[in-house]
Amino acid sequence: MLNEKKDTAILLIHCPDKQGILATVTEFLNKNKGNIIYLDQHVDRQEKIFYMRVEWELENFAIPADKIGEYFDTLIGSPLQMNWKIYFSNEVPRMALFVSKMPHCLFDILARYTAGEWDVEIPMIISNHETLRPVAERFDIDFHYFPINKENKAEQEAAELKLLKENNIDFVVLARYMQILSEDFVKNYPNKVINIHHSFLPAFAGAKPYHAAHERGVKIIGATSHYVTSELDAGPIIEQDVTRCSHVDTIQKLIRKGRDLEKIVLSQAVYKHLQRKVLVYRNRTVVFN
Amino acid sequence: MLNEKKDTAILLIHCPDKQGILATVTEFLNKNKGNIIYLDQHVDRQEKIFYMRVEWELENFAIPADKIGEYFDTLIGSPLQMNWKIYFSNEVPRMALFVSKMPHCLFDILARYTAGEWDVEIPMIISNHETLRPVAERFDIDFHYFPINKENKAEQEAAELKLLKENNIDFVVLARYMQILSEDFVKNYPNKVINIHHSFLPAFAGAKPYHAAHERGVKIIGATSHYVTSELDAGPIIEQDVTRCSHVDTIQKLIRKGRDLEKIVLSQAVYKHLQRKVLVYRNRTVVFN
Amino acid sequence: MLNEKKDTAILLIHCPDKQGILATVTEFLNKNKGNIIYLDQHVDRQEKIFYMRVEWELENFAIPADKIGEYFDTLIGSPLQMNWKIYFSNEVPRMALFVSKMPHCLFDILARYTAGEWDVEIPMIISNHETLRPVAERFDIDFHYFPINKENKAEQEAAELKLLKENNIDFVVLARYMQILSEDFVKNYPNKVINIHHSFLPAFAGAKPYHAAHERGVKIIGATSHYVTSELDAGPIIEQDVTRCSHVDTIQKLIRKGRDLEKIVLSQAVYKHLQRKVLVYRNRTVVFN
Amino acid sequence: MLNEKKDTAILLIHCPDKQGILATVTEFLNKNKGNIIYLDQHVDRQEKIFYMRVEWELENFAIPADKIGEYFDTLIGSPLQMNWKIYFSNEVPRMALFVSKMPHCLFDILARYTAGEWDVEIPMIISNHETLRPVAERFDIDFHYFPINKENKAEQEAAELKLLKENNIDFVVLARYMQILSEDFVKNYPNKVINIHHSFLPAFAGAKPYHAAHERGVKIIGATSHYVTSELDAGPIIEQDVTRCSHVDTIQKLIRKGRDLEKIVLSQAVYKHLQRKVLVYRNRTVVFN
Repeated sequence: MLNEKKDTAILLIHCPDKQGILATVTEFLNKNKGNIIYLDQHVDRQEKIFYMRVEWELENFAIPADKIGEYFDTLIGSPLQMNWKIYFSNEVPRMALFVSKMPHCLFDILARYTAGEWDVEIPMIISNHETLRPVAERFDIDFHYFPINKENKAEQEAAELKLLKENNIDFVVLARYMQILSEDFVKNYPNKVINIHHSFLPAFAGAKPYHAAHERGVKIIGATSHYVTSELDAGPIIEQDVTRCSHVDTIQKLIRKGRDLEKIVLSQAVYKHLQRKVLVYRNRTVVFN
Repeated sequence: MLNEKKDTAILLIHCPDKQGILATVTEFLNKNKGNIIYLDQHVDRQEKIFYMRVEWELENFAIPADKIGEYFDTLIGSPLQMNWKIYFSNEVPRMALFVSKMPHCLFDILARYTAGEWDVEIPMIISNHETLRPVAERFDIDFHYFPINKENKAEQEAAELKLLKENNIDFVVLARYMQILSEDFVKNYPNKVINIHHSFLPAFAGAKPYHAAHERGVKIIGATSHYVTSELDAGPIIEQDVTRCSHVDTIQKLIRKGRDLEKIVLSQAVYKHLQRKVLVYRNRTVVFN
Repeated sequence: MLNEKKDTAILLIHCPDKQGILATVTEFLNKNKGNIIYLDQHVDRQEKIFYMRVEWELENFAIPADKIGEYFDTLIGSPLQMNWKIYFSNEVPRMALFVSKMPHCLFDILARYTAGEWDVEIPMIISNHETLRPVAERFDIDFHYFPINKENKAEQEAAELKLLKENNIDFVVLARYMQILSEDFVKNYPNKVINIHHSFLPAFAGAKPYHAAHERGVKIIGATSHYVTSELDAGPIIEQDVTRCSHVDTIQKLIRKGRDLEKIVLSQAVYKHLQRKVLVYRNRTVVFN
Repeated sequence: MLNEKKDTAILLIHCPDKQGILATVTEFLNKNKGNIIYLDQHVDRQEKIFYMRVEWELENFAIPADKIGEYFDTLIGSPLQMNWKIYFSNEVPRMALFVSKMPHCLFDILARYTAGEWDVEIPMIISNHETLRPVAERFDIDFHYFPINKENKAEQEAAELKLLKENNIDFVVLARYMQILSEDFVKNYPNKVINIHHSFLPAFAGAKPYHAAHERGVKIIGATSHYVTSELDAGPIIEQDVTRCSHVDTIQKLIRKGRDLEKIVLSQAVYKHLQRKVLVYRNRTVVFN
């Protein structure tokens, strides 16, 4: 990592809103000498849901790290019907990259990884084509080739899952992986498979979005990064961005412009995920700043 | 108008592409002493269509204004199978505004009109509600009330069309007019009815796009101005713009943010139309700079 | 106003950061049965400053509205060295508009005012030119003409201030007012005079920014709304926005494009100010969502 | 390259505007059977300068490639006082990269190069630090280390220039090279040294722009790619882009956000340069679409 970091704990919470939750949580941390270095909260007043992300330094915190979850749940989480998760800054998440033939997102992620922009481990790249093996080799990352067709899909996905589990992979990033993952596969990583779709969803879901955008004559194209769910291109959106286009842009030019969008949007989504700043509720995300 | 203007002619052309069209047209103008003050062209190499907009000063032009069309067609337009139109800067287009209850687009257009930003006449506002009559009165513009229901729709549209024809209306702007115009009505003004849709089309066509955008959890909302065709929200797009949103934005906030987008996008589309910079071909636009 | 509103109080706070401030404030409200409907806070960890905006319903709140300030200060504000302000949603702020010759920002603000977008009173427009009197009349707002030259400036500003005070004006909006207010004038309304500058500050401060932008050949132009301080175009920035330009844009076109930016940026800044979402500290703003 | 390409010639022209230039050039190409595949032109009516970029297929063109320049100059260029340049698509430009310690722009460029996004040769990377040698090695590109201090600067630049000349380098890209090139060096590559500055110029020229942006409290940050001239950060701007920021962004966060802007803006500028779509006149650029 580029910057020195202290050991911290991060708590992500969502629960039915009621008076005093924020005060209760901050008091719990303050009383136990947890120095809060980040706090953000949001109340969806329509759905009556309270969301919170709080991060505090473990140095001087009165409760040992491995007991925080238990104490928090007993004293606060359970009584307030909280859906909560705790993360520790010294646990580096492990990510698997799925790719097919296009290298731009892969290069962007590996460049950040190599440059130390992200606090992550990338032990492996999985692909349904051999095309990008040289890129993996350039960055000294294991490359696993799983060719997929209708007949072998279930079997290959099972093999992939086995490999992911053996390597303690926490989450998966589809960096322009041109294969639809089965519902079974996705169930193993709920809200832990991040995809980049090359359109401004929900416009142009499915195949060939740049062709469709050109045909429709839009004046702006976009890219969308989202968690994968069982429904194609319909999972919770993490990040989107757009760029202008015009009548002079052929489909080839849209594809070229889109590459820059795709790689930046995907990497921003992955970064938010790595920072534990994304909460999912009812197919929508809360993405803290 | 804010700026002094010379008398000019504007030629809009599209035709099958072949060598020498650009040279032929510019030679025609040069030889007849037309001082070109704007020229833009585009070739769609996939569809093999040539598009051009050229504007020149009429002062010193050898052909009288009322003969230019005839000469051009005989010498160039017909031989090259051109689809062309000529406009003159001293002919101020006449526009009718259709509104319902929301005033923001109406105010924006009338402010520009009153301030002299646009070279246009707005002799009338037509509405299916009485709500905005006071705004029309504030700007001294005739307000015509045509309440519409299933039974009287055909009859009322006929009356509206009669009024438009009697007043030599060139084009119609739907400034958040919350009624679908019939196919018959639209046929009277092909590529001459400009609508603003409050989403980034083709996402969220139809009713209540902000509700749909909120439900989908998008991170960017948009607005789209397009020519009205027989298919709802599917006509050629003239202009689009977007703005960021997040989990903190309720539907009410999206609606508020969207108002600013809608009024600017609609006015920019109208301005391009007024400048004769929009060409339509196969449900797509060429919008010159 | 477009939406029905409950009676609320709004507290804006900044103070030296220390543990427990957030818990202390939210407890104070919770214990006294204040239903919080908005809470946002920010800690500048470098400067060690805590910022907060909290809004709660007055219905059922145990402390009478006119005593809240006193209680809060005694129990929390003073002990924690807070710089705090309280506002009530039923107190509608009173705004004076200063204009010169350009109408676009004026129209945009009056349209919002008339349409009920904003919860504000605009009892007067002040100008150093007669040009926009007809616009004021169109919207039935008093128009006061104060021609200004070197000789009479101090005297005229004194008369303006007298008029503002007599009319209980809370804040001033300079809607393309082309006169520099004296330091003395500004002192009367600290962080209460909002200006729109037609560039992306700090680029192109001072006169003729579009000319300067054209000369420099920038590819993006902007507009900046800020609180006025004694130093020209150097006050705390509330809002900025930009739009693309290119070599085809003449100075006249930049001015035209810029008008839309200016009016939207100014109105967004005024709206944030009206919502009591802007805090100023050391010439920078905290603008809550 | 990703797409198959035909052999083409590209002509870039600027000259005093007068009637008939466009017709003259297109006639010349048409008569000699040059199939035009791209034509864009611009007239700066204030400065009375005509700009043009035209690209045509060499197949069937009546004039041999090595004679086109001579014929064009004799028949058209000289008579019309043109400043013109001709390029051929089969001549791949050779680029040298200058870097210091930050890898993000370097990675982005090398990824595009390796992926075949650009039609360019990159025979060498030059640096004043050893830091990025491993990146160069990862991509198998020669890395030359030229440490620079006040005493050896002239000497080292001379050595760099010698190396560039020996390797037939056409243009230089400063990918966050943190050394000011001397005027003498720049003279060797007029409008052929492309820099990325990490601010929205002309705001925050010089050192530490993110610190300055934070101090000023701007709501938007930017990046600017420009040709290097003798005056620091004042050369002709090729491309700029911006992104929003707010009070929550520390300097560190601005630097992180800025990295993505910098790499994309620089690469877009390099791409435009590679496509021969940038013309410079009086310290401003014309950048064709």
